[in-house]
Amino acid sequence: MKPVKVGICGLGTVGGGTFNVLKRNADEISRRAGRKIIVEEVGARRDNPDVDTKGTQVTRDIFAVATNPEIDIVVELIGGYDVARDLVLTAIENGKHVVTANKALIAEHGNEIFEAAQKKNVMVAFEAGVAGGIPIIKAIREGLSANKINWLAGIINGTGNFILTEMKEKGRDFDDVLKEAQALGYAEADPTFDVEGIDAAHKLTILSSIAFGIPLQFSKAYTEGISQITTEDVQYAEELGYRIKHLGVSRRTESGIELRVHPTLVPEQALLANVNGVMNAVVVDGDAVGQTLYYGAGAGAEPTASAVVADIVDVVRTLTADRDNRVPHLAFQPGELSDAPVLPIEENECAYYLRLSASEKPGTMAAVTTILGKQDINIEAIIQKATSAEQVPVIILTQQVKEQKMNDAIAAIEALEAVTGSVKRIRVEQL
Amino acid sequence: MKPVKVGICGLGTVGGGTFNVLKRNADEISRRAGRKIIVEEVGARRDNPDVDTKGTQVTRDIFAVATNPEIDIVVELIGGYDVARDLVLTAIENGKHVVTANKALIAEHGNEIFEAAQKKNVMVAFEAGVAGGIPIIKAIREGLSANKINWLAGIINGTGNFILTEMKEKGRDFDDVLKEAQALGYAEADPTFDVEGIDAAHKLTILSSIAFGIPLQFSKAYTEGISQITTEDVQYAEELGYRIKHLGVSRRTESGIELRVHPTLVPEQALLANVNGVMNAVVVDGDAVGQTLYYGAGAGAEPTASAVVADIVDVVRTLTADRDNRVPHLAFQPGELSDAPVLPIEENECAYYLRLSASEKPGTMAAVTTILGKQDINIEAIIQKATSAEQVPVIILTQQVKEQKMNDAIAAIEALEAVTGSVKRIRVEQL
Repeated sequence: MKPVKVGICGLGTVGGGTFNVLKRNADEISRRAGRKIIVEEVGARRDNPDVDTKGTQVTRDIFAVATNPEIDIVVELIGGYDVARDLVLTAIENGKHVVTANKALIAEHGNEIFEAAQKKNVMVAFEAGVAGGIPIIKAIREGLSANKINWLAGIINGTGNFILTEMKEKGRDFDDVLKEAQALGYAEADPTFDVEGIDAAHKLTILSSIAFGIPLQFSKAYTEGISQITTEDVQYAEELGYRIKHLGVSRRTESGIELRVHPTLVPEQALLANVNGVMNAVVVDGDAVGQTLYYGAGAGAEPTASAVVADIVDVVRTLTADRDNRVPHLAFQPGELSDAPVLPIEENECAYYLRLSASEKPGTMAAVTTILGKQDINIEAIIQKATSAEQVPVIILTQQVKEQKMNDAIAAIEALEAVTGSVKRIRVEQL
Repeated sequence: MKPVKVGICGLGTVGGGTFNVLKRNADEISRRAGRKIIVEEVGARRDNPDVDTKGTQVTRDIFAVATNPEIDIVVELIGGYDVARDLVLTAIENGKHVVTANKALIAEHGNEIFEAAQKKNVMVAFEAGVAGGIPIIKAIREGLSANKINWLAGIINGTGNFILTEMKEKGRDFDDVLKEAQALGYAEADPTFDVEGIDAAHKLTILSSIAFGIPLQFSKAYTEGISQITTEDVQYAEELGYRIKHLGVSRRTESGIELRVHPTLVPEQALLANVNGVMNAVVVDGDAVGQTLYYGAGAGAEPTASAVVADIVDVVRTLTADRDNRVPHLAFQPGELSDAPVLPIEENECAYYLRLSASEKPGTMAAVTTILGKQDINIEAIIQKATSAEQVPVIILTQQVKEQKMNDAIAAIEALEAVTGSVKRIRVEQL
């Protein structure tokens, strides 16, 4: 069969990895795909010392790749929003299929991009955008297509998981580990994207859409980072039989879809609690299959390239399928998306870990528990440490309740004279 | 679009589950597939009290389903070998696509079936045959298509894993837990298939073929069961930092493909070591992606139905794709399979746990370690228990070595006068 010609835009970490994997495994890949996959042209602002492009046409103009009439599939690996959006839309306009690893682009401009692709009868594949080399998009979109998905929860940012793992295993504090993560190249100089949960929220937005058949709605995701987690919280969680993980959670409820990224207490025996370092994992709960879990490297040159190249092979295989028989971009047919609303965080429901500093005066605990009781919040466990100080730390683990009720309870507890400072709140998922 | 008509043969656990999932999630599934999937006819020897077939044509003659001109896809869920083979070949001969959950059929007759399907230009899908609801076939065949797979290892028999989990967690012995597994319906009256590793070897044979692109060669799989595992072994393994799991392992080496099912010591911190009860999990190591793991329910009505229905949707999507652009049955194009030989167990290489009973006389340990040294076997750890008995248990953990060398060493150790009875050997994988 006729070889398929690919153009790669961007030759950084993932672009370089993709070029190298396509070259090294060319034989293995074409034995699977049934035809050769050739890199016809590379568009990149600069060379990559780990990549030998000898024999391949290289241009500094990425848009030349997107319009090159020889090219069947444009691979967008430049990252970012605006130029990437222009590039992808240009490729689509020129009748090219597109493969991208850009979660920010898909989460924020995916609806527009898929509509354009639908009009031009081309595919846009984005497996590499979520959880690196783990084929999680494929698993949910195709492997679990029989299921009504109930919920999914995942560790989908390796940097954050590295930091929390080090804090737990070595008792180090957040700032200390963050500096190491930056030195190791796991975290950027400005770590906001990873540490404050924006990157995870991009990925969760995508997973939520393909699981529940809703349009991409990144702006409605609730996002809370891990920078406020202290070693104390890590230790108290451990005493209670939990570990703190930075989770993305999306759940179908009767009133809508929960879509939230935040630090989370997870039972220590749960597999997700044992996903350590920079690794990623996602649990998906479907009504027929029950829980399934997918684990692997969430970043890095070749793990991400693995997903990019798998997408290229998938696109090659659909070249002769008519549009209506292809796997839809968001798992559900474009006309069949659901209008279930993404719920504001106040409407979400989960259990909570609370940490507060209270005076040892008689009546303080009674006042706190009375406030919780008024909001119908049941208590699962309490730790109160005896110290010589006047103020003692009190840790409370609650049962499930609507976030709004918890907000009201926390405001009332903070107003107590016997309670100093604010109440620390971390959500809890039993999984 | 025109609805797709499915015929289900067999209405037992999985057949009933498939019927029910297709009915309950009909809307969710057709929103994904882009068309309705209708059960046109059911062929079953008897009714299933959990299934309401009202409104569906039911026949006692499964071959009537395979030849029904209205039907596009025949779903084989009768199990077994001979009738199932005839049924599937009849369906293919009549131009039907086939979906099956029958690992025994695929492992033993898959090469013949795929050849027939290729000739008639139809698909045979078998995701449900391995690890129930976990989309592991799809993950390897499509999700990891960029990779040269190095090895895979999995817990792919839930019955065996339930038994080993109970032995470990409650100190119970094999026979005792087996009886409970039978009472709970996890194990058959004749448990040989599960407990002696035949079921796992069927599944491993399939995984190995799609990972390495070799024809199905069940007869060459090495199969060893768990019925000889004692509570002592479980406890010694724990002392050494390991758990005993019944693994299927397949590895690519320079001289061929290892294909083996046996009890295995796995480091306690490995995720596979923490897969408990009837759950299944498979780790796949690819040259680009590194290790990925897939976890979920390996059996049961609806988890297995989840995979059957996903296969139906997949087949529906390829209806307009020409044969050369479909995902090949064994991941690699039929003309591109490898002739790498499956290695005899003597050629396999791994580390070993040995347990022997030796006299405390001076010189015994020297004699044992000298024998190991002669075969170039390095020792990783030794436990020798002080007891009041004349014979004491000695446990040795070795480094990696070819099985033949270990066989020679064991024969020599057993010939020592100071050693009583046979040497217990369990393989070790660091994963």
